[in-house]
Amino acid sequence: MNAIHPKVTTGALPASRKIHVPGTLHPDIRVPMREIAVHPSAGEPPLTVYDSSGPYSDPATDIEIAKGLPRLREDWIAVRGDTEGYDGRRVQAMDNGFAEGTRLTPEFPVRYAPRRATGGKAVTQLAYARAGIVTPEMEFVAIRENLGRAAAKEALARESLERDGESFGASIPDFVTPEFVRDEVARGRAIIPANINHPESEPMAIGRNFLVKINANIGNSAVTSSMEEEVEKMVWATRWGADTVMDLSTGRNIHNIRDWILRNSAVPIGTVPLYQALEKVGGVAEDLTWELYRDTLVEQAEQGVDYFTIHAGLRLHHVPLTVDRVTGIVSRGGSIMAKWCLHHHRESFLYEHFGEICDIARAYDVSFSLGDGLRPGSIADANDAAQFAELETLGELTQIAWAKDCQVMIEGPGHVPMHKIRENMTKQLEVCGEAPFYTLGPLTTDIAPGYDHITSGIGAAMIGWFGTAMLCYVTPKEHLGLPDRDDVKTGVITYKIAAHAADLAKGHPAAKRRDDALSRARFEFRWEDQFNLSLDPETARSFHDQTLPKEAHKLAHFCSMCGPKFCSMRISHEIRGEAQKEGMAAMAEKYRAGGDLYMPVGES
Amino acid sequence: MNAIHPKVTTGALPASRKIHVPGTLHPDIRVPMREIAVHPSAGEPPLTVYDSSGPYSDPATDIEIAKGLPRLREDWIAVRGDTEGYDGRRVQAMDNGFAEGTRLTPEFPVRYAPRRATGGKAVTQLAYARAGIVTPEMEFVAIRENLGRAAAKEALARESLERDGESFGASIPDFVTPEFVRDEVARGRAIIPANINHPESEPMAIGRNFLVKINANIGNSAVTSSMEEEVEKMVWATRWGADTVMDLSTGRNIHNIRDWILRNSAVPIGTVPLYQALEKVGGVAEDLTWELYRDTLVEQAEQGVDYFTIHAGLRLHHVPLTVDRVTGIVSRGGSIMAKWCLHHHRESFLYEHFGEICDIARAYDVSFSLGDGLRPGSIADANDAAQFAELETLGELTQIAWAKDCQVMIEGPGHVPMHKIRENMTKQLEVCGEAPFYTLGPLTTDIAPGYDHITSGIGAAMIGWFGTAMLCYVTPKEHLGLPDRDDVKTGVITYKIAAHAADLAKGHPAAKRRDDALSRARFEFRWEDQFNLSLDPETARSFHDQTLPKEAHKLAHFCSMCGPKFCSMRISHEIRGEAQKEGMAAMAEKYRAGGDLYMPVGES
Repeated sequence: MNAIHPKVTTGALPASRKIHVPGTLHPDIRVPMREIAVHPSAGEPPLTVYDSSGPYSDPATDIEIAKGLPRLREDWIAVRGDTEGYDGRRVQAMDNGFAEGTRLTPEFPVRYAPRRATGGKAVTQLAYARAGIVTPEMEFVAIRENLGRAAAKEALARESLERDGESFGASIPDFVTPEFVRDEVARGRAIIPANINHPESEPMAIGRNFLVKINANIGNSAVTSSMEEEVEKMVWATRWGADTVMDLSTGRNIHNIRDWILRNSAVPIGTVPLYQALEKVGGVAEDLTWELYRDTLVEQAEQGVDYFTIHAGLRLHHVPLTVDRVTGIVSRGGSIMAKWCLHHHRESFLYEHFGEICDIARAYDVSFSLGDGLRPGSIADANDAAQFAELETLGELTQIAWAKDCQVMIEGPGHVPMHKIRENMTKQLEVCGEAPFYTLGPLTTDIAPGYDHITSGIGAAMIGWFGTAMLCYVTPKEHLGLPDRDDVKTGVITYKIAAHAADLAKGHPAAKRRDDALSRARFEFRWEDQFNLSLDPETARSFHDQTLPKEAHKLAHFCSMCGPKFCSMRISHEIRGEAQKEGMAAMAEKYRAGGDLYMPVGES
Repeated sequence: MNAIHPKVTTGALPASRKIHVPGTLHPDIRVPMREIAVHPSAGEPPLTVYDSSGPYSDPATDIEIAKGLPRLREDWIAVRGDTEGYDGRRVQAMDNGFAEGTRLTPEFPVRYAPRRATGGKAVTQLAYARAGIVTPEMEFVAIRENLGRAAAKEALARESLERDGESFGASIPDFVTPEFVRDEVARGRAIIPANINHPESEPMAIGRNFLVKINANIGNSAVTSSMEEEVEKMVWATRWGADTVMDLSTGRNIHNIRDWILRNSAVPIGTVPLYQALEKVGGVAEDLTWELYRDTLVEQAEQGVDYFTIHAGLRLHHVPLTVDRVTGIVSRGGSIMAKWCLHHHRESFLYEHFGEICDIARAYDVSFSLGDGLRPGSIADANDAAQFAELETLGELTQIAWAKDCQVMIEGPGHVPMHKIRENMTKQLEVCGEAPFYTLGPLTTDIAPGYDHITSGIGAAMIGWFGTAMLCYVTPKEHLGLPDRDDVKTGVITYKIAAHAADLAKGHPAAKRRDDALSRARFEFRWEDQFNLSLDPETARSFHDQTLPKEAHKLAHFCSMCGPKFCSMRISHEIRGEAQKEGMAAMAEKYRAGGDLYMPVGES
């Protein structure tokens, strides 16, 4: 296997350093965060931010894709004593679409025996949470969500002052404790997608009382891209902030590419098992069977997939509701299942066998992402009978999953005009018992192909504010083609913006720190700090340098937008200078108290 | 002047044709619209869309920048008999920053004598509206706003069915009549910026009961760009949908460049006269005087500037309120005036002379854009005492302007987290008597320099929905540098998305037609139509072609995103085929009526 040395992007982001915060309940856990240093003149400590990038951004880690990442959760899982290693399913030619010879992506060089629950136990974070157990995963999440804020009472008191938001009924705490995480998971209001066969992953939570997360989709299509490209897309997406990655590959080599992705991913990996199942029957939807699908679930669970999109909510009698739609069924999984149902004139096998699906999921702790096969594909179809009928079924399935101790989130639309977004969130919370909502956008208009990261970023920010726990990104290529590396980055940054805007509006107590730190840097003309504190330092710097390339200009008290004479911030500093001389603070006080400074307007 | 033949972008957009709709009250008016043809297989008429691009996109017009555009309103203005031509102010060396020789931008080759009101009359659209006069400008606007919809009763009845939105108290009619336009202008709820010395402009309205408009800023800065570049930026911005353009030039040659822009602009041009006034005093804010400022207003009014940003709402006693802000004063005009007030320890001369400013404006019909000099420049400063104190003053000034028959709109923020956006809109409507709101963004987070078209596009869509009449674009270069041509386009398209998303959410009766037409094209694999109906056909096509470049693929029933087997829309068509055979419509009816198709979930 010496021939395989794919290159991926590594190294720290500018001015950034990876730190690791240890646990208290579980002292061996090391929670990664990114510290961004600011210029000494700021007189501020470094800013700590959430870090989804994994060991790739840590210069101290030796990255070799053919070896995979360190298996940090391996001991945590083993020590629980409720799982066992076993031989596992044998890889079959159909798993890779019968690719052979040079067309076959090589297997990942190391094969780990899969583990599964013993004696029909549920080995899910939900089961532990219900049993009152605070797992290392839960403490990891608690530390991670606090973004390095001290737990000290005084700090809390100070920070509480800054809380300011509208959370629409969410219960965001001042400080996240491991017990809070356990409780949220136990209630089903949050999930920690963490397959026991993906011990390389750094635990994270999806739930509306935590930071809003984002997902990036990758995956080759029939016009095949390579394993190397897909691994790099995963690394690249997480570098810029993707909290989970869905591998939506179709075509050949699905099994082997997924193995490379999983062994090298520090974030949870989601899939739509139906896609691989369809490949196995040559793309003929009506030839799908429960047995084949079931086998695919086991195959992927053994590999370590952290969450499955299951389109079990689309039932036979829903299909006719789509007949008058402008854009029919636009979910790939939804259309496949609708076709199967209609052809056989039978209820969906996913719906009928959902209990058995749960039995597989609980043995590996695969979380569910219950797919919205009937999500609207156009403004005209938003919030229609088909969409909401399926949502009701998703609520029903949520209860079944919970009864089996399985972790569940619910997928949401799609294309929705702004005035119909809130209804989606309200209905979802109501119908699905507050299980986390995971939406694609929504796109707020259909008229801008090429810019659907923006049409959807608007909707994503809004629905995130209203309570959606994870936002699935949309790239500029949506509706037009397969995203490349640049598209992936644009999609991720756009969705980090949407998620952060939502955190701010919800009043997340730690969110505003980054805005404030960057704004102070801006006001003090610390250009380097302004770049480094931003979501994309490279782009910020290059845009600045397009007009003022000299290093000296990074100390300048103006930029090319306004030039020195018209720089409002420069003038503001002059004003403050005068203000100090004149005791302006006292004058402001007087004005606020309704003093006599106010004069009637002068007329000519 | 033969040497001057700047090249600007001309020609029709793909599949598009310029049409002109005549008036009824004023049969000589010709309202431009763009018709986008679709493939014959669609069985649909062409889609008519709003067209801000002027004669540049009409192959029938001979464009020569050195001649300027046809002066279409010249006769409308003359025939009113309330204005006279006069010599006008002489151009002075300081108007162009004392540029000389080759550094001096040549004057526009044709000089038209300026006109002004006779006998102290108000020659504003507001004055006419109040007098019950439906001007050609008003009828022009009425036709334009209807996007080519027929006025016929049957059509109305059919279209009314599609009305669906939440307008937060706006009064959007099913059909816009000239009388409705007059009434909205008379109430001060809409303005038609139309300086009598800019007869080249095609009338448009800004008001919350009309389509949401967008503004693009252009202008050279100290790091000078040329007249050719600025004229092209104006043409380019309007080609992609800018409804008005603000020339924010600073530095030398301001006067002459503005002349070239005005003589070639089919959209209203706005300025901030304070910028030029400051140039005239060498950039020293404290040297500004009322007399100099007044002279600059006359200079620009004679040239034909359609609206002035006047920062008269920032008063001396407001300045201390900004002392504890994270980012002080970030409006250029605001900071200049604050410095002036503080230095002289005097009330703002703009505030004190506002009545005289109105006297100038009413003689030329220059509209006001009352500047928000204290808009917040960071999330931390949003909705603070300084901002709202100034807004109160803007409300006071609105009443003065209205008493003088001057048209007014109000500028708004800035940086505002999502949960504080609505408050801005509500307060503005309340305090400013429903005068149109014109906002910059707002930016919903500070942490993404390089992507502030997106951070602000989110806020713009929301505040547009809540009632803002015009959205001032923000480009990706915001905070970092001067936008180039690509940035201008990105900014404009992003804001067209925000404005359209707002129109949809408000329930504008004609807005959804374009979404529906594009979605039908998408569902029917009419790729060319999908590109052509989009806001940016060039980008949509190029993104598609990056993976599937062959012409044959534009007939394909799939794209590279999913490939043929996984194309949900292709499968949807197969489903419809089956549905027809099986009488699915009847089944749907049965389900909706609560039939017995519903079965309990199967457990394993």
